[in-house]
Amino acid sequence: MSLAERLAADEITITAWSGVPDSLTVELLAAQPFDAVTLDMQHGGHHEDSVLRSIASVQKSGKPVLVRIPVGRFDMASRALDFGADAVIAPMINSVEDAQKFAASMKYPPVGERSWGPTFGMPRYGKISQQDWLTQSNDRVLAFAMVETRPAFEALDGILAVPGIDGIFVGPSDFSIAWSNGAVVDSTLEEMMGTVAAIAERTREAGKFAAIYVIDPKIAGRVVGMGFRLLATGSEGQVFSYGTASLLGAINQSIKG
Amino acid sequence: MSLAERLAADEITITAWSGVPDSLTVELLAAQPFDAVTLDMQHGGHHEDSVLRSIASVQKSGKPVLVRIPVGRFDMASRALDFGADAVIAPMINSVEDAQKFAASMKYPPVGERSWGPTFGMPRYGKISQQDWLTQSNDRVLAFAMVETRPAFEALDGILAVPGIDGIFVGPSDFSIAWSNGAVVDSTLEEMMGTVAAIAERTREAGKFAAIYVIDPKIAGRVVGMGFRLLATGSEGQVFSYGTASLLGAINQSIKG
Amino acid sequence: MSLAERLAADEITITAWSGVPDSLTVELLAAQPFDAVTLDMQHGGHHEDSVLRSIASVQKSGKPVLVRIPVGRFDMASRALDFGADAVIAPMINSVEDAQKFAASMKYPPVGERSWGPTFGMPRYGKISQQDWLTQSNDRVLAFAMVETRPAFEALDGILAVPGIDGIFVGPSDFSIAWSNGAVVDSTLEEMMGTVAAIAERTREAGKFAAIYVIDPKIAGRVVGMGFRLLATGSEGQVFSYGTASLLGAINQSIKG
Amino acid sequence: MSLAERLAADEITITAWSGVPDSLTVELLAAQPFDAVTLDMQHGGHHEDSVLRSIASVQKSGKPVLVRIPVGRFDMASRALDFGADAVIAPMINSVEDAQKFAASMKYPPVGERSWGPTFGMPRYGKISQQDWLTQSNDRVLAFAMVETRPAFEALDGILAVPGIDGIFVGPSDFSIAWSNGAVVDSTLEEMMGTVAAIAERTREAGKFAAIYVIDPKIAGRVVGMGFRLLATGSEGQVFSYGTASLLGAINQSIKG
Amino acid sequence: MSLAERLAADEITITAWSGVPDSLTVELLAAQPFDAVTLDMQHGGHHEDSVLRSIASVQKSGKPVLVRIPVGRFDMASRALDFGADAVIAPMINSVEDAQKFAASMKYPPVGERSWGPTFGMPRYGKISQQDWLTQSNDRVLAFAMVETRPAFEALDGILAVPGIDGIFVGPSDFSIAWSNGAVVDSTLEEMMGTVAAIAERTREAGKFAAIYVIDPKIAGRVVGMGFRLLATGSEGQVFSYGTASLLGAINQSIKG
Amino acid sequence: MSLAERLAADEITITAWSGVPDSLTVELLAAQPFDAVTLDMQHGGHHEDSVLRSIASVQKSGKPVLVRIPVGRFDMASRALDFGADAVIAPMINSVEDAQKFAASMKYPPVGERSWGPTFGMPRYGKISQQDWLTQSNDRVLAFAMVETRPAFEALDGILAVPGIDGIFVGPSDFSIAWSNGAVVDSTLEEMMGTVAAIAERTREAGKFAAIYVIDPKIAGRVVGMGFRLLATGSEGQVFSYGTASLLGAINQSIKG
Repeated sequence: MSLAERLAADEITITAWSGVPDSLTVELLAAQPFDAVTLDMQHGGHHEDSVLRSIASVQKSGKPVLVRIPVGRFDMASRALDFGADAVIAPMINSVEDAQKFAASMKYPPVGERSWGPTFGMPRYGKISQQDWLTQSNDRVLAFAMVETRPAFEALDGILAVPGIDGIFVGPSDFSIAWSNGAVVDSTLEEMMGTVAAIAERTREAGKFAAIYVIDPKIAGRVVGMGFRLLATGSEGQVFSYGTASLLGAINQSIKG
Repeated sequence: MSLAERLAADEITITAWSGVPDSLTVELLAAQPFDAVTLDMQHGGHHEDSVLRSIASVQKSGKPVLVRIPVGRFDMASRALDFGADAVIAPMINSVEDAQKFAASMKYPPVGERSWGPTFGMPRYGKISQQDWLTQSNDRVLAFAMVETRPAFEALDGILAVPGIDGIFVGPSDFSIAWSNGAVVDSTLEEMMGTVAAIAERTREAGKFAAIYVIDPKIAGRVVGMGFRLLATGSEGQVFSYGTASLLGAINQSIKG
Repeated sequence: MSLAERLAADEITITAWSGVPDSLTVELLAAQPFDAVTLDMQHGGHHEDSVLRSIASVQKSGKPVLVRIPVGRFDMASRALDFGADAVIAPMINSVEDAQKFAASMKYPPVGERSWGPTFGMPRYGKISQQDWLTQSNDRVLAFAMVETRPAFEALDGILAVPGIDGIFVGPSDFSIAWSNGAVVDSTLEEMMGTVAAIAERTREAGKFAAIYVIDPKIAGRVVGMGFRLLATGSEGQVFSYGTASLLGAINQSIKG
Repeated sequence: MSLAERLAADEITITAWSGVPDSLTVELLAAQPFDAVTLDMQHGGHHEDSVLRSIASVQKSGKPVLVRIPVGRFDMASRALDFGADAVIAPMINSVEDAQKFAASMKYPPVGERSWGPTFGMPRYGKISQQDWLTQSNDRVLAFAMVETRPAFEALDGILAVPGIDGIFVGPSDFSIAWSNGAVVDSTLEEMMGTVAAIAERTREAGKFAAIYVIDPKIAGRVVGMGFRLLATGSEGQVFSYGTASLLGAINQSIKG
Repeated sequence: MSLAERLAADEITITAWSGVPDSLTVELLAAQPFDAVTLDMQHGGHHEDSVLRSIASVQKSGKPVLVRIPVGRFDMASRALDFGADAVIAPMINSVEDAQKFAASMKYPPVGERSWGPTFGMPRYGKISQQDWLTQSNDRVLAFAMVETRPAFEALDGILAVPGIDGIFVGPSDFSIAWSNGAVVDSTLEEMMGTVAAIAERTREAGKFAAIYVIDPKIAGRVVGMGFRLLATGSEGQVFSYGTASLLGAINQSIKG
Repeated sequence: MSLAERLAADEITITAWSGVPDSLTVELLAAQPFDAVTLDMQHGGHHEDSVLRSIASVQKSGKPVLVRIPVGRFDMASRALDFGADAVIAPMINSVEDAQKFAASMKYPPVGERSWGPTFGMPRYGKISQQDWLTQSNDRVLAFAMVETRPAFEALDGILAVPGIDGIFVGPSDFSIAWSNGAVVDSTLEEMMGTVAAIAERTREAGKFAAIYVIDPKIAGRVVGMGFRLLATGSEGQVFSYGTASLLGAINQSIKG
């Protein structure tokens, strides 16, 4: 079941979030019981080479692979798809124009302006003709626009109306900074939660997918309740931190008796 | 003989097309009897590091090296030249403004706005003074604008008139998608062939070089007849495919007697 | 003492200038008695991966680390900070609009639009809370706008007035090309020296830091006299050249007696 | 069907021979219609890191992966298995003692002395318990001893009798140098062909697998007739050479009409 | 406090165990609350390059760094020290002769035969003269011989008597295979536990350090009770597994309410 | 003129000494006015991959390239030649048996046992037939045995008599440690200088080449007087140190007036 089909079925999907640009680390992360893996090129360390190689690592696990591009790097959105990504997340889509540029890079004509050349992605996908790849890709690959500023929220309906935009991804830390006008960073800032819920609601009403980053696992139930179905979590640093606490806790308990 | 001199002499020049971002693979490809090697950063996997290192691999073979940049990444056009490239191919030059930005990144003042700093390119070139490098580079390095959409074709004369644009490179797969409004991908689509010929003709009339990607070798004679002189072919995948067919064919013939 | 504090104290600060994208080479360069190290992504070979890894090499030496981004790659300015850079140098800031985009990428709201996510930078910095990182970063990290063309010089006062721009960095080679309308490259071109001095003066009057690249060490005293305090020099190539001359000179003297 | 099962069924198996230490190049090679891929660490450029990453590339294609280690590097034989290799080829096994050391590194006790720790290999294999991995590995992974000198040929029966040695791999170029006492290198040297046939015959009589490198495809039928079933061919250089000849041949034919 | 001092003070020391040959992954692992980090070149994926770069990552955290070399690769023991390692663990030290070779590679004359050349290790260590480095290294760096077979156990007293061997490291999985003559792999095999305890006891009686790998945290208290003070645990795979269980557990609990 | 020819002509040859495993750094070092470049795998950081790629960097400069292997790693001696090295330096050749193993790995039969397979070296060399490569290599590539201990000195005549050993390379730091029985490290230790001179003398009498590492340039004249012709110096660290002193000295002088 592709990511598009899974989300269309309204299934909760939890993606790990890789920031270490190394295909072996990604291979180990993809072997954990997450539903998908995202490679982060904005705040994480992933780059062209690591994305190209790490996509294969995730594909070997049979899971979908998403790529978050740096701000405004729509050339990389197309490249991620050419390398085999199932979805791309674009940060700081703050206007309809941003959304249009993003969509153009993600979809073949006539929807967008994606250029032909799936050099790595097509062989990695399995047996498929060039013509079928052209015909099927626009539906199969997903474009998530990040909403994480006030202008983005104000432009939400317009962004949702752009052909080729498949979902909205909320960045709650940036949203809290925006909401507090730079005063605080708090991914569960209570004052913004109503707005976050509204984003999910309007996104679903527009027939598109709602996604969000979950830093504090305790917020998960609440955002699922709001309608978010794609939940991102589990950077290498976070998983290492949880794992070390758990492992050293068990060792120390054994030692101290 | 530089690439510029070779094309000025109207010689047919066939460039391999590397998509594997590894300088050793490029070294092996450059050792084959192609006339030049292009490093593809748009649909291929090449990136800053592989281009920097692979340019040296091609130079060791004595052949010209071209770089195709990702869409709109004119910062990289300048960098490719600073690393030692002889030419840059820019995809999706769909307007005169695109062409102007591209030319600006490729040529030193007063033609363009290329910034000074041939950190790797100048030592790799051989004995040359800074002043000579400044004076000679604009003529020696070539800027190829890709024409692969309807708007690009409509803007062709304007693009050809931009100072610093040295040639037009046709992307036939994208052009077929554009021509069919997204319906088919076919690098030898008959309906567009008249237009492809017209591009070569007008490019030559403008005193510039006509280039094209040749996926199906059987089309080569026809495009040469149209006036194209720089022919791109031979990605690692394509060469592997042809070579394996040939080698395994000979082995199997020997076994089956 | 941070780079910001050091420059605020008007101390002459000499930064090495790394163009080799390799964290071990940077480690060796950072061990030399320079005051700081700059990683060059414009004309040097540094890229996302090498910057991510080399910043750690410089930090291990206890010195500040600066990153020069490619032209217009403000996405990378934010990333350099997320990786732990203390300052970013942006080339070809030729207008107030350029300066505003650069500042936006460097400073968190409300000054700019930098996105939250110091995945590597915060753990590398040492013990600090997310909230303190948000509050302190805008003052601690420095944005240097390169002035190296005539339009840039004409826009200088406007650039200096942009909130978030902390200093001006003069690129003397490009400036000489600009000043001579493409005729010569000469980092100590006498005709432009009055203007170079004026840049330093106006920058200091605006309460900002004046920086310049010093290719010929004999110019150092003069530019310090003009008010420049951050002096860049010492690419790997230049240091190798000076060092080999010195070492082989001593060996040959010993042999020839 | 594993490599062991395939050879036990007496099926002709043709392995490509990768010498480029890059997992993407290996991915492309593995996608060609060879039956298996060998990573060469002796004369090829493969090393620990490339083997670790390239094994995953071959596994993604569903084909067996073999590793040829450098001379005497039995530590690497164990490591190749820990990384997931299906077989190891050891060069210059010139004595029973050499064969014993090799076998010791390849098989768990009580057959050999392989150390426990399939850090990467076991997760890559799929669902299997530690205990099953221990029990099944000795049969599943194959140890090929290279016979390529006169002493090796003289020790052949002893080598074949070493528990844990699963097959003999003939290196015909070295064998020709040995046979001619250093005078010629000729992988199809007629004088040695009777001996080559004898190696296959005695290997099969001992119930083990006979393998050989095939440089000239025209020899394939003859060596299959001798009883060799694992045939190695198709280095990147050879495949590039065959492929370029084929592709440029077609292009030139089209151009010349 | 150095690793040698820490163990001399009989402090329990828990080292993480890195198998991913990537210096950034090691940086993240070193930031977790382990007391030290070991880079595994035997069953893990570490190699010369990753060890060279990852040692710097661990040093940045202020923690000791150990390296486990492949079987018999005593050339690498010396290299690990030249790169800056504080200790080396050598697998399969099955005889006094093995121990002597290992010690020779670890200690400068007159104790051993380590060759001079701390190209990277000395600058990384901080201010120290060449003479002090020579004089102090033999005491500061630790050589751990792995005992994991019956012959090794039988030679234990001889191994402990070799000058330059500082400790014994028990590999419990291999030891269980050895103890069961290849029948089972079980790191807590009850039948061998008395022998494991005897190893610790005799090691401590010889004035040397006892170390062991702890796969199941519940065994930690027991082995500490036996006298082991250096406990290895926490490979990336294990920490990922514990961490994902913990994180996804919390998320799922939040969702299910 | 090859390295063998140059030394046969008794020309003083100064080789740089690279320890940074990065082909770009090596490219920059090779561009300096040294006569040759050595890649150090013993105390430097070079490894299989960096040697493979860096040999091409040195070859591009037209200079000979040498490789120093780790202690006892004769598998790597052969590989260095397969990658294109002109000479190999083997450390710690302390006995005739060591010298025989080294020579065996360096020379094709009948002199040695080098295995056939110049996968990279032959194409890099230029147009040459396989047969000529076989016939000419033994004379063209040079094997330098390092003499740096008392046993090595005692075995010197025997080592010099081994067919295939082309020269002796003195490691003066290790030799001083050996000479002082571990008490001091001093590459110009006066007490050993007579012995060092004797090594050169006996080496030349045997018709072989004398080489030595020169750390202090002031010793150069003296060792040339002894008969040494291949002088190694100029690690990246040393060249950086000399170069920074020279460059910053000039800058500071300019500033202080």
